[in-house]
Amino acid sequence: MANREPMDNKFGRKALQVKEAQMKIMAYAARLESETVPLEAAPGRYLADNVAAPHPFPAFNRSGMDGYAVVSADTANCREGGTVWLNVVDNIPCGSVPSGEIISGTAARIMTGAQVPEGADAVVMLEATETRELNGVPQVGIRKPILSGRNVTPRGLEISEGDLVLAAGRKIAAGDIAVLATFGISDVPVIRRPKVGVFATGSELLDVKEPLQPGKIRNSNSPMLEALVREAGGEPVMLGAIADDLDLARSKVQMALETYDLVITTGGVSVGDYDIMGDLVREEAGDMLFNKVAMRPGSVTTAAVRGGKVLLALSGNPGASYIGFQLFARPAIASMQGATEPFLPEWTVILGADYSKVNNYTRFVRARLELPDGNVYAYPAALDASSVMVTIKDSDCLIIVPPEERGLTAGTKVQVIKLP
Amino acid sequence: MANREPMDNKFGRKALQVKEAQMKIMAYAARLESETVPLEAAPGRYLADNVAAPHPFPAFNRSGMDGYAVVSADTANCREGGTVWLNVVDNIPCGSVPSGEIISGTAARIMTGAQVPEGADAVVMLEATETRELNGVPQVGIRKPILSGRNVTPRGLEISEGDLVLAAGRKIAAGDIAVLATFGISDVPVIRRPKVGVFATGSELLDVKEPLQPGKIRNSNSPMLEALVREAGGEPVMLGAIADDLDLARSKVQMALETYDLVITTGGVSVGDYDIMGDLVREEAGDMLFNKVAMRPGSVTTAAVRGGKVLLALSGNPGASYIGFQLFARPAIASMQGATEPFLPEWTVILGADYSKVNNYTRFVRARLELPDGNVYAYPAALDASSVMVTIKDSDCLIIVPPEERGLTAGTKVQVIKLP
Repeated sequence: MANREPMDNKFGRKALQVKEAQMKIMAYAARLESETVPLEAAPGRYLADNVAAPHPFPAFNRSGMDGYAVVSADTANCREGGTVWLNVVDNIPCGSVPSGEIISGTAARIMTGAQVPEGADAVVMLEATETRELNGVPQVGIRKPILSGRNVTPRGLEISEGDLVLAAGRKIAAGDIAVLATFGISDVPVIRRPKVGVFATGSELLDVKEPLQPGKIRNSNSPMLEALVREAGGEPVMLGAIADDLDLARSKVQMALETYDLVITTGGVSVGDYDIMGDLVREEAGDMLFNKVAMRPGSVTTAAVRGGKVLLALSGNPGASYIGFQLFARPAIASMQGATEPFLPEWTVILGADYSKVNNYTRFVRARLELPDGNVYAYPAALDASSVMVTIKDSDCLIIVPPEERGLTAGTKVQVIKLP
Repeated sequence: MANREPMDNKFGRKALQVKEAQMKIMAYAARLESETVPLEAAPGRYLADNVAAPHPFPAFNRSGMDGYAVVSADTANCREGGTVWLNVVDNIPCGSVPSGEIISGTAARIMTGAQVPEGADAVVMLEATETRELNGVPQVGIRKPILSGRNVTPRGLEISEGDLVLAAGRKIAAGDIAVLATFGISDVPVIRRPKVGVFATGSELLDVKEPLQPGKIRNSNSPMLEALVREAGGEPVMLGAIADDLDLARSKVQMALETYDLVITTGGVSVGDYDIMGDLVREEAGDMLFNKVAMRPGSVTTAAVRGGKVLLALSGNPGASYIGFQLFARPAIASMQGATEPFLPEWTVILGADYSKVNNYTRFVRARLELPDGNVYAYPAALDASSVMVTIKDSDCLIIVPPEERGLTAGTKVQVIKLP
């Protein structure tokens, strides 16, 4: 992104670039305390500590087949076409320990997953064997030579003792659960979920349950933010609406900042006379991080800090508040959980259709990815104005349109932010 | 995929192609009943009914700016450089109703998001205006002409009344929550979560909390499946381990099939003598859907049906049980929830590195996607044997290697299944 700093002279707001604004917030998004959760509650949480393997995995030479554990050299004679007969001296089901060593001329019946006995270096699959009894001794007949190591997974193949298997800051998914279970980690150290207070502002807002009234809209931002906070791993605390009373708003927000790890508001950040959040932040000049960002939508996005906690005041426009959340709140919530990669991934992709709407701020355009034939295309949504709500649900990325471009033509390489 | 049907003559198993096997299971994965959940519990659930817009959105002509609602024709005179002065006859905060019509020569102070009065067809932004009082009448001065429609979002721009806004079978995410909230849908019709019973089999299995013992392994499949079922939207019910007793296993599995919507087991499906699930399914031949699939890993994957419920017996190998879950259980769990697209997406991508391991079954290779510069590459995991657990966590797709390929060279186009 270009490094311009436009000034809005009349209203005294200095616009920060998005990355600067992000860094100002991230400075107050330090990792929270760790806590322990049972394994089944760990998916979606961020690992607090590195996990090193307490033992190799597999912990023993493991049979990959149902069959017979043998000394592979014994089977070399099969080369001439003859069947080699070995005395079956052991039977090793899964979970059992071999009763002894396998020496030349003997074999052990063994199950998939069972421990291969000392001395044996290969397992012949059951389907390739025949059995007989000779003088009361059970024997297995093998018709083809087998290579050393065949159908045996050696101890430590996947993981050696002491290996770092899961790094702190990793988001735990099903595959990590398998690793944690394998190493007996039934109580998992994770970072606690940040508590995120969510306010709405605006006297035009009806509750979702209320019938529609002229001139009013139902509050869609708060439920959307509740879902977004949860998706980001935070614990949303819905604090209702703030009325247009500066004193009341101030005390509510201050209490929230004392109680929660992050406070998000929507609305009340424009330059008009009912812009309660703007007033609130302006009067606390010392604590203000920014009150304008060189971006569309959401240039009015405002952030302040008090007692080390961030107040993030997003635009009341649904599109702008969604994008503001993804750019500023999501990385902060991830960072508080110790995420190694708190920011959403950025990809270079091919623009699928012309995009003509430009201005001197960086624009984040809702878009849909398509992946035909080894390529990645991003198609801008037909409606992407700040106020537009309906295209949020159909977007899986945001195209970053740099400032002062003269429009972008289809086929151009563009940067996108991949949405969760 | 090629349409071969290899026979395993010795053990009488007929291998189905993956798609055939999937369809056999999907025949028993009909949509379950719907239920109603509060809006905040709806993310991640599948919508049961179509949602049509009960009113247009926006429901009124909406101001996109703080400023003055005007009759745009009045501003045409600014073209000559003069300021046009209009009498300010109304003040419309958000959520209020205009007190009357705007006629030529008048304007209304209006907030972002407020209802534009009848007669007005544009909003001049506050920053581009000046004010004065003339004979006790407040006036606004406008210096530049404005086009009709400027800064006004017309009623119904995003959604017309009666539009289908959310289709049944859609997985609800944050953007959908905004739509539901906007239309006052505080109780959301969704399909109930399928209850999925999960058993492990194998006398080698230790509980996650148990200390390691020689020849044994901790049960990593059950916790992994618990996470996978939940990720797929199902409700896992952990039923512990089945011992190697056919009668006991039969009664446990039958009770589970009567109680839950789907039952998944891991282990006990090979051709050896302790393969309890194999025995159990073989004795119920009439109900068997398949007991071999032309795939690696997991060719022993077995499915039976009883009372309309599917018993899916996955391989005990971690890699195979993970892939078996994604291919067979996940689509069934999604389908029971009425998902429009129950299968994981398939993409054509570029193979990032040579892959040489082939056989006459279709192979599903754990891999990692990279998206440099508009292209998509898939890199096979170094370890992808059926028994390998450690690479599950690092994979975000499965490369589909068709049967009888002579290995694949880097740069080849391949199909991948995108993992969640």
